[in-house]
Amino acid sequence: MAEPFNHSSADAVSAPVQGGTPKADEQLRAIVARIERLEEEKKALMADIKEVYDEAKGNGFDVKVLRQVIRIRKQDRQERMEMEAVLETYLGALGDL
Amino acid sequence: MAEPFNHSSADAVSAPVQGGTPKADEQLRAIVARIERLEEEKKALMADIKEVYDEAKGNGFDVKVLRQVIRIRKQDRQERMEMEAVLETYLGALGDL
Amino acid sequence: MAEPFNHSSADAVSAPVQGGTPKADEQLRAIVARIERLEEEKKALMADIKEVYDEAKGNGFDVKVLRQVIRIRKQDRQERMEMEAVLETYLGALGDL
Amino acid sequence: MAEPFNHSSADAVSAPVQGGTPKADEQLRAIVARIERLEEEKKALMADIKEVYDEAKGNGFDVKVLRQVIRIRKQDRQERMEMEAVLETYLGALGDL
Repeated sequence: MAEPFNHSSADAVSAPVQGGTPKADEQLRAIVARIERLEEEKKALMADIKEVYDEAKGNGFDVKVLRQVIRIRKQDRQERMEMEAVLETYLGALGDL
Repeated sequence: MAEPFNHSSADAVSAPVQGGTPKADEQLRAIVARIERLEEEKKALMADIKEVYDEAKGNGFDVKVLRQVIRIRKQDRQERMEMEAVLETYLGALGDL
Repeated sequence: MAEPFNHSSADAVSAPVQGGTPKADEQLRAIVARIERLEEEKKALMADIKEVYDEAKGNGFDVKVLRQVIRIRKQDRQERMEMEAVLETYLGALGDL
Repeated sequence: MAEPFNHSSADAVSAPVQGGTPKADEQLRAIVARIERLEEEKKALMADIKEVYDEAKGNGFDVKVLRQVIRIRKQDRQERMEMEAVLETYLGALGDL
């Protein structure tokens, strides 16, 4: 597949970068449009997530701890138990329990 | 609105944290379910975005530069021009143009 | 104090950015040299920190837990206890203990 | 070298984590002390760097652009030129120059 017009900087040839071809320009525009649309959706989703946390805060929940709960629930349970046991051992050794 | 069961750590009373009430537990479960569902959607979207970048790379585009283009297109055009002019002045003063 | 040559982009005047003055160029070079020297020192320190973690790993310590210990020891003890109590309540309500 | 007392969570054996030995506790304390001392030095250095940026700002320099200059000067010059050429081509194809 002939490289459209792009000489990616990593393997750029010494010759100056050539101008794009109509086909490559169109391809680039389509790629950028798709990325920007997906990023808009992502931005909206992150706003929804923030809204749920704000609502939770309004209902008296501790958002910092709630985020910790969400992180913990993503972890493998067995692995978490083992890490907590090791953590307890270390904190005990340091007098920080 | 009586605080369900949560004493957020920031304003936690000296009394030990009480157990949840059925209503508060249910509220917490609903909040966590909503956050986890939204985070799953976000994760899927980020995979879609990565897919487009991978596709672009396969078509010979420079992904690092492509990301820079997406960032630049989010900036206010006038502000960008001014920053680039100041950048050029600084790099010139440092002999880095 | 007359602004040397820099029109910071935020408050850039409509006139194009003027070239620097010898004094401003010298000032900029001195600032950049100081920042770069401090960043070199920071880089060396971060390498030293990494080295200690690598050594700890070599001695059989769990680096992930060790980092957690370092983070925990930076927290206010009372605050940490309260957060852990709230966390326990939430995880209990979700059946994740 | 017999593993002191730590069963790193990654390869934790099914047996419950044993208590530390005096020697392992001492080793852990030494490691934590070294890390915390190095992190204090790093924190002081970062304060120094911030101070230089604040001073630059007070002298009319644009801190955002100054940070960009510091980043750019870390890049390989040839690589930077090639990336800027590709960037220009992409922005041109998108009508964003």
